[in-house]
Amino acid sequence: MIAVLCGGVGAARFLAGLVGVVDPAEVVAIVNTGDDTELHGLSISPDLDTITYTLSGRVNPETGWGLAGDEFSTMDALDALGGSTWFRLGNLDLATHLYRTGRLRQGATVTEVTAELARAFGLRLTLLPMSNEPVRTLLELVDGGTVGFQDYFVRLRHAVAVRAVRWPAAAAALPAPGVIEALTGARIIIIAPSNPVVSIDPILAVPGIREALRSRRERVVAISPIVAGAALKGPADRLLTELGGSATAAGVAAWLADVVGVLVVDEADADHAADVEAHGMTCVVTPTVMSDAEVAAGLARTVLAAGGLTELA
Amino acid sequence: MIAVLCGGVGAARFLAGLVGVVDPAEVVAIVNTGDDTELHGLSISPDLDTITYTLSGRVNPETGWGLAGDEFSTMDALDALGGSTWFRLGNLDLATHLYRTGRLRQGATVTEVTAELARAFGLRLTLLPMSNEPVRTLLELVDGGTVGFQDYFVRLRHAVAVRAVRWPAAAAALPAPGVIEALTGARIIIIAPSNPVVSIDPILAVPGIREALRSRRERVVAISPIVAGAALKGPADRLLTELGGSATAAGVAAWLADVVGVLVVDEADADHAADVEAHGMTCVVTPTVMSDAEVAAGLARTVLAAGGLTELA
Repeated sequence: MIAVLCGGVGAARFLAGLVGVVDPAEVVAIVNTGDDTELHGLSISPDLDTITYTLSGRVNPETGWGLAGDEFSTMDALDALGGSTWFRLGNLDLATHLYRTGRLRQGATVTEVTAELARAFGLRLTLLPMSNEPVRTLLELVDGGTVGFQDYFVRLRHAVAVRAVRWPAAAAALPAPGVIEALTGARIIIIAPSNPVVSIDPILAVPGIREALRSRRERVVAISPIVAGAALKGPADRLLTELGGSATAAGVAAWLADVVGVLVVDEADADHAADVEAHGMTCVVTPTVMSDAEVAAGLARTVLAAGGLTELA
Repeated sequence: MIAVLCGGVGAARFLAGLVGVVDPAEVVAIVNTGDDTELHGLSISPDLDTITYTLSGRVNPETGWGLAGDEFSTMDALDALGGSTWFRLGNLDLATHLYRTGRLRQGATVTEVTAELARAFGLRLTLLPMSNEPVRTLLELVDGGTVGFQDYFVRLRHAVAVRAVRWPAAAAALPAPGVIEALTGARIIIIAPSNPVVSIDPILAVPGIREALRSRRERVVAISPIVAGAALKGPADRLLTELGGSATAAGVAAWLADVVGVLVVDEADADHAADVEAHGMTCVVTPTVMSDAEVAAGLARTVLAAGGLTELA
């Protein structure tokens, strides 16, 4: 069994490669819900949805999130009413949020709703939220104020400097059912190429998860989301720098040093290998920019081999 | 100033006639919110929306509710996910519910949201909910069980016998700001041709409203929603009978006897005039079936004249 810690778009693309290489039934994806938010009374789980849409083949290929061919007439109508539309919810995408919200109001857990949606979208892997409790990512801004992740990422277009990232609700949260079992039982634990600060750290903030990875550090293989000193997508590079880290492959190694045994870095960062290995981990160099399914599958094979699963690679 | 107690479709059509005859700025519509429900986490106020959509000229003319030209791709997608779609929310209509729900979550009152939506839709009359607190209509079924109004009306298609109708939350509710002032200050109080059992009674269940009407009974003019022994729309006829009343113009008179001074009945019920007047009220006979705007305007004029506002009629 293969466990994968996941954020959004990068993780979704990696998972799409992975399930082309191994039996999806062997894969347990543990997904960040620190990005979750509530808009117009609807419960939105962006990372879970991005993965579900991507693996079902229905994701919008241009954005990497949302549904292909979706339309926005509800948002346009809401805009005409003076409503808040900085977070654009497509007509078809809205159905996912209505379903999730309705089931949560009926008393279903996030785990249950996630499994129902994954099944409805035809997914064969196991998709788990990191927790059934809300563990919202809060960002303290340099200019003052604290905002939730979607406020930072979408409304403010991550164009503001961050002083600290916190998960005040984490202390009272539990890992979702199956998460610790997956981490304990997996032959390999993969950290997908997701933002370490706001996609992976929220998962590690849930009590018990960081400890589970630490105790199996030699089985944990991470893929650096930083390539040649920059994030392929999103603000990972700036966040690492703003929070005292370094926006390099070695910076990712330092950030995740206590939980990662192998770091897979892009060919562009081959000369960082020694700096990565200085953090007491193995460095594997390979193409990581998943421009097509073939690269994603090749990356998945390299990761499996790096984790010792050579018969799958 | 003219106050109108309102349910949904019949009231909306009457108001459309009324605002063609008098200055809309003189009209205060006090609207039933006993039909309100929550679906998929969204706050739905069907009667307020039907009136707003009708008066803006944007109502679906075939159904009398919902928006003209609306599409249902979100509902179709929700259906494909296995979600609950017996209450069909159109793509454009959804924007209204997202707006309302978002504003209520921000702490706005139903009164405030109603005014904002009325303004956004270009309405010039004053639209008030009967209360800012939820006062949900509950129907006890003969076959057992208690359901909310939309469950009864939409999901069960009102094809079940009702034993009793209750508003348990009414005792703790207050009339919305402006309601008692409108009823006290109005030159005429009109009860629109709405279902007396599930559209008007919920308004009268809010503490203080029935008393306000009783004290001004001679100024209260109601229009019978029962014509020739049948409801033009919906289950008013069956509900009146099931609850021990009579599905006739005289039955409406009996049902509302304590609050109504004048009952306007359709020409088809001219021979009920004596039975109506036996309840201590004046009976006025006129065409009430609002098949077009002209009939609605004529009905409005007759109602105003019946209430003594002959200069407006």
